[in-house]
Amino acid sequence: MNQKLIFTNLVGEALDTLVADLGNPPVYVIADVNTNQCVMPVLMEQSQTVARAPKIIIKAGDMNKNLDNVQSVWKALHDAGATRGSVVVNVGGGVVTDLGGFAAATFKRGMRVINVPTTLLGAVDASVGGKTGINFNGYKNEIGTFTEPEASIISTGFFVTLPQQELLSGYAEMLKHALLENREELSRLLNYSVVYPIFNPDTLLPLIESTVQVKSRIVEADFREAGARKALNLGHTAGHAFESLALRRQSPVAHGFAVAQGLVVSLVLSHIKLGFPSDVLHTFAGYVRTNYNAFSFTCDDYPELLRYMAADKKNTEPGKVAFTLLADVGDVRIDQQLADDDIKSALDIYRDLMGI
Amino acid sequence: MNQKLIFTNLVGEALDTLVADLGNPPVYVIADVNTNQCVMPVLMEQSQTVARAPKIIIKAGDMNKNLDNVQSVWKALHDAGATRGSVVVNVGGGVVTDLGGFAAATFKRGMRVINVPTTLLGAVDASVGGKTGINFNGYKNEIGTFTEPEASIISTGFFVTLPQQELLSGYAEMLKHALLENREELSRLLNYSVVYPIFNPDTLLPLIESTVQVKSRIVEADFREAGARKALNLGHTAGHAFESLALRRQSPVAHGFAVAQGLVVSLVLSHIKLGFPSDVLHTFAGYVRTNYNAFSFTCDDYPELLRYMAADKKNTEPGKVAFTLLADVGDVRIDQQLADDDIKSALDIYRDLMGI
Repeated sequence: MNQKLIFTNLVGEALDTLVADLGNPPVYVIADVNTNQCVMPVLMEQSQTVARAPKIIIKAGDMNKNLDNVQSVWKALHDAGATRGSVVVNVGGGVVTDLGGFAAATFKRGMRVINVPTTLLGAVDASVGGKTGINFNGYKNEIGTFTEPEASIISTGFFVTLPQQELLSGYAEMLKHALLENREELSRLLNYSVVYPIFNPDTLLPLIESTVQVKSRIVEADFREAGARKALNLGHTAGHAFESLALRRQSPVAHGFAVAQGLVVSLVLSHIKLGFPSDVLHTFAGYVRTNYNAFSFTCDDYPELLRYMAADKKNTEPGKVAFTLLADVGDVRIDQQLADDDIKSALDIYRDLMGI
Repeated sequence: MNQKLIFTNLVGEALDTLVADLGNPPVYVIADVNTNQCVMPVLMEQSQTVARAPKIIIKAGDMNKNLDNVQSVWKALHDAGATRGSVVVNVGGGVVTDLGGFAAATFKRGMRVINVPTTLLGAVDASVGGKTGINFNGYKNEIGTFTEPEASIISTGFFVTLPQQELLSGYAEMLKHALLENREELSRLLNYSVVYPIFNPDTLLPLIESTVQVKSRIVEADFREAGARKALNLGHTAGHAFESLALRRQSPVAHGFAVAQGLVVSLVLSHIKLGFPSDVLHTFAGYVRTNYNAFSFTCDDYPELLRYMAADKKNTEPGKVAFTLLADVGDVRIDQQLADDDIKSALDIYRDLMGI
């Protein structure tokens, strides 16, 4: 990857150094209303760059990750005099880095971006790897680009004010990275809790660093997701379907919670199709059942869930659903085309494992 | 460049071969109402690929190169079941290749594209080099990406039904490429007329091929327009300002006509600042005065024109206007920061040369 990954809790200092290294171009900060209130005052004290930069504030929440807000950002960048040589600093969670990244990637055909993730999910997922995007026409991340940011500055200090649900949501992506890596990494994570007895930024930072490096290596091997990068889709085909169903029910579910459930579905499928070890499946499902609320649905919802899976943008053949599965921890098999009946069986077993 | 350039009047055959080489992925054809009427029936006879593919038809004209139409294309791609593995074939002029290219570059984070330009301007400019984009917020190509198509199939057969104005418009970009190359190329073009005594597809094709290769070499050296590619901006800073003024007056001017005038302005500036030879300037201005309508304005319009130039997306420093100029034919100097007074003087001389 060309993207620099900086792991530090001295965020302001790291940012000022980065901007100086880029030749001190004009900087525009994008944040949402929450990070503008909670994080911006701190960052403005720590960083000359942030203190001086024009701020573009967007609405918070995944339901605002849409074209209307992108248009507001484009207009604000124009009005503030941004050029292709300017730099956008995204301060926020996945919504800000996805939407701000997309706006920057397309404004005057592309500006440079530095991400300052303020949520665990953003730190371990959205801020790294160059996916930008917005929801469109009822589908998640339907529109976007692959555009690598210059850098992400990854810290844990901002997480102390995050609700437990947010921390768990991010932790689900870390679990995914561990499943893609090896049993040691997975054990480390399954023996750790991000919220019990209390959130600890110091013990979390090294775990973040090792799991982000897993993602970074995979992205480097396949930036545009032609092959190996599909590993990162583990748990997401089912996870996105759960999110879409929840959205249609007008009770959105946190992304990481959907992913945690989706990971269980993918391990069930991995067990059925590729003999993924049953003991790991049960240990993992137990961890998810204990730490994450199960996503509730019945067999009446299967057709809708299958429809969402078929619309997943990672499918390359119309009408076929391609899953990423594991033959074992760290042994990834992409592009597994599954029949609807296999998926329905896995959903049955998932409901059984989760007790719903 | 990775982009394949195919010069042939056997378009259907070339397209079918290309699609087969890509592994026969699903193909979606984007055209505008004009090319759908005039070109599509011919192409459907010549090409199995086009005959079978779903067609997405957009409104014609630069005023429709906007976000509304991009949204229609995104929805149509979704409804027709397009995936990231599918291929978009753009059949049309610059509006279709720019807008269709942008829609494809951002749908599910990017599909592959083949351009089939049906106008001379499209063939020599928009379809080659990977710029995609739409107008936004009153500014031309404000939003877009750098995304190279797989290939462009460049032909002249479709041009026989083009109005003279369209042919001249495209020829202006060829003149620009010749100015960037050398005196021989420039002489060849200044001694040729694309419309007198009659348009001739056979004599034009080799001229197109040599000027497109000029562009292709420049793009290859600097895809994201960090430096050398700015050569292609010759004449465009003033040309875009003329287009913006015309748009605000609600009497749009053809892009190539604005570029032809802009080239004269840039040669005047080149003469003033870099000693560009006066005889070439006068010969060139004479060709433009004879073949293109002068763009009419008075000194009362200077502040507005300067404002448009300052907003050009190729400027990297806020408030400064960067021109591409020539010390001689083929001797390019990019990033020439000019004072407002120099630009005003050049506009005075331009009006004098054009007799307005």
